[in-house]
Amino acid sequence: MENFRFFVPTDIRFGRDRLSELPEALAKFGKRVLVVYGGGSIKRSGLYERVMNQLSDFEVTELAGVEPNPRIDSVREGVKLARDNKIDVILAVGGGSVVDASKVIAASVPYDGDAWDLVKNPSLIDMALPLVDILTLSATGTEMNRNAVISNMETNEKLGTTGMNLIPQVSFLDPAETQTVSKWQTAAGSSDILSHLFEQYFARTANVDLQDFLAEALMKVVIKHGPIAFNEPDNYESRAELMWASSLALNGLENAGKPVGWTVHPIEHELSAFYDITHGVGLAILTPRWMEYALDEKTAPKFAQYGRNVWGLQGDDDMAVAKDAIRKTIAWYQSMDIPMTLPEVGIDESKLDVMAAAAVEHGGLTQGVYAPMQPADVEAVLRASMTAPVVD
Amino acid sequence: MENFRFFVPTDIRFGRDRLSELPEALAKFGKRVLVVYGGGSIKRSGLYERVMNQLSDFEVTELAGVEPNPRIDSVREGVKLARDNKIDVILAVGGGSVVDASKVIAASVPYDGDAWDLVKNPSLIDMALPLVDILTLSATGTEMNRNAVISNMETNEKLGTTGMNLIPQVSFLDPAETQTVSKWQTAAGSSDILSHLFEQYFARTANVDLQDFLAEALMKVVIKHGPIAFNEPDNYESRAELMWASSLALNGLENAGKPVGWTVHPIEHELSAFYDITHGVGLAILTPRWMEYALDEKTAPKFAQYGRNVWGLQGDDDMAVAKDAIRKTIAWYQSMDIPMTLPEVGIDESKLDVMAAAAVEHGGLTQGVYAPMQPADVEAVLRASMTAPVVD
Repeated sequence: MENFRFFVPTDIRFGRDRLSELPEALAKFGKRVLVVYGGGSIKRSGLYERVMNQLSDFEVTELAGVEPNPRIDSVREGVKLARDNKIDVILAVGGGSVVDASKVIAASVPYDGDAWDLVKNPSLIDMALPLVDILTLSATGTEMNRNAVISNMETNEKLGTTGMNLIPQVSFLDPAETQTVSKWQTAAGSSDILSHLFEQYFARTANVDLQDFLAEALMKVVIKHGPIAFNEPDNYESRAELMWASSLALNGLENAGKPVGWTVHPIEHELSAFYDITHGVGLAILTPRWMEYALDEKTAPKFAQYGRNVWGLQGDDDMAVAKDAIRKTIAWYQSMDIPMTLPEVGIDESKLDVMAAAAVEHGGLTQGVYAPMQPADVEAVLRASMTAPVVD
Repeated sequence: MENFRFFVPTDIRFGRDRLSELPEALAKFGKRVLVVYGGGSIKRSGLYERVMNQLSDFEVTELAGVEPNPRIDSVREGVKLARDNKIDVILAVGGGSVVDASKVIAASVPYDGDAWDLVKNPSLIDMALPLVDILTLSATGTEMNRNAVISNMETNEKLGTTGMNLIPQVSFLDPAETQTVSKWQTAAGSSDILSHLFEQYFARTANVDLQDFLAEALMKVVIKHGPIAFNEPDNYESRAELMWASSLALNGLENAGKPVGWTVHPIEHELSAFYDITHGVGLAILTPRWMEYALDEKTAPKFAQYGRNVWGLQGDDDMAVAKDAIRKTIAWYQSMDIPMTLPEVGIDESKLDVMAAAAVEHGGLTQGVYAPMQPADVEAVLRASMTAPVVD
């Protein structure tokens, strides 16, 4: 186990009907609140009104319309609103996109330059406005970490950034708010959580039983409860399991003491940057092909460990168990009606090479990852994703 | 899953050779430091000198001699020292006892009354001095939570207290510092960690897969690495697994959303209060007998889950798997030479009834626990602990 720092001071308020705690959570930071939200689902669900009812003692400014795969233009708009209104604290109400946009707004307000600088170069991030969020989607884990992902459609870039002061101060996690999430987004969110665990589980560091066993525990949670939530959208208990799992999957527990290099996310970011597809669906399509790429005689024991500890597979032949584990993973995605090919989400062969090159460059995939990749390797994974998956 | 708040803002600095970060960690709180430590093991190991070398810019006051099962007298002494020297921050250097004593000192300094009040009645705890610790023993989890256990030998009471402001601000966890821990204390510490997980795992709340799977993951870590550390005291990697597991076993992760009532700890606290035995050893002796007491047709599925997911036991007969799991647990304690009877730690039959009654009273064991106990039930468990364990 390598040295690590673990410092996750987010105050999690988990469960039903806790919005009456919102004024207390905000008031310590000030009176002027920028409320950031997305396309209107929180108005349809009634959450918007319930939030605003709690804000009668605050001066409220609103930034509406933050997109899935949030864009730097929305961030810039929020920065201007925050400066013009001398905002004290940001309240993000929505999914990971809304929280991520809010994080970069929070960091950009005191920054003397363009917000995109802070995405391109995280080391420029210093102070940030305090951020409180009310989460409505279980997926990204942003509610309990320092990361944000922002897209720039002008440059076809979707990049992650990070900063010590980007971690939310308070996160309200009410599983009931996720019961109105569509089947498609429930499946995609579950895929995203599972991918976060895969990205950190498949790493080269030895002597990390604790991190691996915790990751396996959370994988079992997602694998069990993702399909239940998919089939029974109102199942509060499975929504709760997914919601807390999404936070714990990416709050630093899994990679504390265990340096990891992510692979599938950087590749998927290129798909989203070029085609604006649903992130978790892109991950689901890519993951089995990446697993096949990474599987060899040296990595078979780890894939077999995944098969045995997560899927309960039996057998002494690591390679056979590993391949069965990949098949199980594919079947799990399919059980939630996630398409398993790129054409089904509108991606043709025309830009595979461009996206592959960009993924390697932006993701640094040639070293420090579980299975290093050159552009040709990524392109092969993308090309394999054009047709139905076969594990042989 | 029930509603919960999870707020664990301790800044964990885990790993080798991080003491150079100590001045930065302390300086934000002030210049006047009360250094609290135990019986001298930190002087023998050289840790004392390495710590003091970092404190040249601080005004240092020392409280030495804090006991295992820390006593209220030491706390009172610390409070006087802190007040007399206008202490800004407490630095605890040692095991759980030293940290626990420091927590109650920290809370008592601003309290206008006797420190024992705050142990008897946690609701009296309000503000506290900031606390930084350097841990030398993996066991209690106090380094990442709000709890403290203090003994009063005059009244034969060993009681836990808790308060929002008792959580350490910064905890330095260097597994290498635990390599000098004796085999006896290594075994006892591992037993303590495992018991924390048991206390929270065996609960009546339904729909807590996440909490249960996480607990099982940490149990597997302790069960694997406790005996390795016992047999190879210098094995850094196993010391690291135990150290981080001890923090995560009792930092709120396991009981978030899952109300739990502890049973074995309250009973053991009476053993320690009356006989000053090693806490983790008392837990090890009591645990198998408690498991047998709690095992019935209704609880067999949970004990069988423990057997299957933690010990890898096979078979469809829950009761048979459950009993095998208890046998495995006993064998695990014995593999680290932990005695399995009370006479071996110097406890005879003379006070079993008194301790049983006190445990039920102090621990509230008649309701809200996994298997409610009357004084006669506790006495039967203690009486069963007089002879070698047999699971039939």
